[in-house]
Amino acid sequence: MKPIDYEDSTPEVRALYDDLIKVRNNPWIHNFWRTIAHHPATLSRIWEAVKSVVIAPSAIDPLTKEMIFIAVSVQNNCRYGLASAHTFAKAKGMTDAQYGELLDLIALANETNRLAIGYEVELDRVFVEALGH
Amino acid sequence: MKPIDYEDSTPEVRALYDDLIKVRNNPWIHNFWRTIAHHPATLSRIWEAVKSVVIAPSAIDPLTKEMIFIAVSVQNNCRYGLASAHTFAKAKGMTDAQYGELLDLIALANETNRLAIGYEVELDRVFVEALGH
Amino acid sequence: MKPIDYEDSTPEVRALYDDLIKVRNNPWIHNFWRTIAHHPATLSRIWEAVKSVVIAPSAIDPLTKEMIFIAVSVQNNCRYGLASAHTFAKAKGMTDAQYGELLDLIALANETNRLAIGYEVELDRVFVEALGH
Amino acid sequence: MKPIDYEDSTPEVRALYDDLIKVRNNPWIHNFWRTIAHHPATLSRIWEAVKSVVIAPSAIDPLTKEMIFIAVSVQNNCRYGLASAHTFAKAKGMTDAQYGELLDLIALANETNRLAIGYEVELDRVFVEALGH
Amino acid sequence: MKPIDYEDSTPEVRALYDDLIKVRNNPWIHNFWRTIAHHPATLSRIWEAVKSVVIAPSAIDPLTKEMIFIAVSVQNNCRYGLASAHTFAKAKGMTDAQYGELLDLIALANETNRLAIGYEVELDRVFVEALGH
Amino acid sequence: MKPIDYEDSTPEVRALYDDLIKVRNNPWIHNFWRTIAHHPATLSRIWEAVKSVVIAPSAIDPLTKEMIFIAVSVQNNCRYGLASAHTFAKAKGMTDAQYGELLDLIALANETNRLAIGYEVELDRVFVEALGH
Repeated sequence: MKPIDYEDSTPEVRALYDDLIKVRNNPWIHNFWRTIAHHPATLSRIWEAVKSVVIAPSAIDPLTKEMIFIAVSVQNNCRYGLASAHTFAKAKGMTDAQYGELLDLIALANETNRLAIGYEVELDRVFVEALGH
Repeated sequence: MKPIDYEDSTPEVRALYDDLIKVRNNPWIHNFWRTIAHHPATLSRIWEAVKSVVIAPSAIDPLTKEMIFIAVSVQNNCRYGLASAHTFAKAKGMTDAQYGELLDLIALANETNRLAIGYEVELDRVFVEALGH
Repeated sequence: MKPIDYEDSTPEVRALYDDLIKVRNNPWIHNFWRTIAHHPATLSRIWEAVKSVVIAPSAIDPLTKEMIFIAVSVQNNCRYGLASAHTFAKAKGMTDAQYGELLDLIALANETNRLAIGYEVELDRVFVEALGH
Repeated sequence: MKPIDYEDSTPEVRALYDDLIKVRNNPWIHNFWRTIAHHPATLSRIWEAVKSVVIAPSAIDPLTKEMIFIAVSVQNNCRYGLASAHTFAKAKGMTDAQYGELLDLIALANETNRLAIGYEVELDRVFVEALGH
Repeated sequence: MKPIDYEDSTPEVRALYDDLIKVRNNPWIHNFWRTIAHHPATLSRIWEAVKSVVIAPSAIDPLTKEMIFIAVSVQNNCRYGLASAHTFAKAKGMTDAQYGELLDLIALANETNRLAIGYEVELDRVFVEALGH
Repeated sequence: MKPIDYEDSTPEVRALYDDLIKVRNNPWIHNFWRTIAHHPATLSRIWEAVKSVVIAPSAIDPLTKEMIFIAVSVQNNCRYGLASAHTFAKAKGMTDAQYGELLDLIALANETNRLAIGYEVELDRVFVEALGH
């Protein structure tokens, strides 16, 4: 769907746009936000989630968070998610070497996952004990 | 398939088991390795890959690597991959709070990915420029 | 692959095209049908399936059926499936508000699914009883 | 992970449990909630999302919503999500015939999706026009 | 759901069971058929599809067909599909070495796929020309 | 990412390009290799894997191997993987009829997988016995 521009937005959406601009300290509102604005309840819900899960200080550092988004986006084959998280990760200092290693890891994890599934590998007792299942 | 025990292994497989024990400094050979040993070429190939991608020092720290494995395993719904990476991440210092945050991030990334796919959000020009596509 | 036009079709395919036109009461044969026509057995099989599963009157109403197709297409990241089901759903009366809610639901279901997988949530006894497993 | 029982919960979690019990008018707190309670921020966020997306009156009827959850859960191969949505759908009146039709639709949508992907079917102009892309 | 036994089946289902027994020349009706029998239209439709796509002589040999089913089942993480196709492949002569190679290929294809997605590799002109897109 | 041309490559990458050209007896280096060359360790690792898993003589014939790659690529919705494996399969003799049958099989396997998952079909004892789990 076409993104909704700031000047075309309803007051409800515009208030959310204003908060986005303020919290991110960036006048550019990405297409993701301007497109999900077609359903204001989604825009409001996801923006609140991103503020608390991604933007707020936490026990996982900001660059690692972007790497997790990259990994999930590659798994879901989501081009938009990949491009946005890749851009944000670079802005947070990810080097090309790190990106290369990240894709290498993602690729290898898919390989070991498929082998574990195909061979129906049984859980080791040490895992069950470590995780307290 | 049933894992192949050390004492039942062929010389080719045993040599790989010995290297696994030595490099990981751990006499326990997890079921994953003992099961893919049914096809020694796979055991050899994947073990070499894990040594170079996961074990060797690199630009991504060891705990973050396990978190990437957790993210991919949750996406592939691979119980074995999840249990092993979760166990290894804990051994490398991941706290329960970090695991909670990690799952929260994975969950949220799936949500934003599905919205980007469902709304067919167009790539922002700033992403295209940042990534030099 | 390139779609096969009506005038270029073999008699076997043309008979199926004629049935498509008649049953759907629409002279336009979508690219999906004209492309899978490269393997006439597929065209025949899938067309019979669509007639009995989607077109025939049933216990699930026609709009809900399109919503299910949308949900599956978003999960499979199938652009064609999404565009066709979205178009058909609109033709059957789906409002923009309903589409917004549908994507919101799909997004949230992915989030709860990933949390259930990541936390390996145990089935509640009440579910086992209700489903008579 | 093991679910956290009401009597073992922290005040923060207990307040959310109380709201769950009250809003759903059901003293049983399913394992999903009691397990994600290990990360109270997740419990709070997801519970707010479920209240607004699933429980609040909306333009999609409650039974259809559960069917969407079933479809997504089958796609993600999430046993917990499937069992819970199946149970709730039955409680909201879904008949066995409807469940059979629902799985038939999901199965068929996967088939047509994979054909559209494998044949790389081009989008019809009528879809592009209908959706205003 | 619980499989429906022959003696408990309706005449409609029993006629399909009889055809299954006759065509496969095997008195054992697998759980898959006896479970989807809860929705007789699904049983009928899928059985017709299996007869024409899997059982009928064709340009792909029977063992390769089972290998394709194994590959798809590993991708979908479908335990039942994997166990049934693995069993049928063995009955059609697949050796343990072939199974090992098959899983190795599946694993590697996942790795190259994820790299192609993560690096957004552009299609080579030679592919576009060869496929006549 | 942009592919790295032969003349712009580092000595490390160039040595791998030379080996690719020699082993495949083809001066054209596909974009896949020239793009993953951004991380030379990935290029080296994957090229070694392809040599041993795909190119080396083995118990699965070369055309069947490409069909497996096609099946996995369709499942992962990987356009590059699909186009390359499709092209290579044609070069190895795959007919249009075989491609049509292959997609038909992939589509049907997805359908039976989703039904097995949705109905939670129990494993037959005959499978468990045949596979010696």
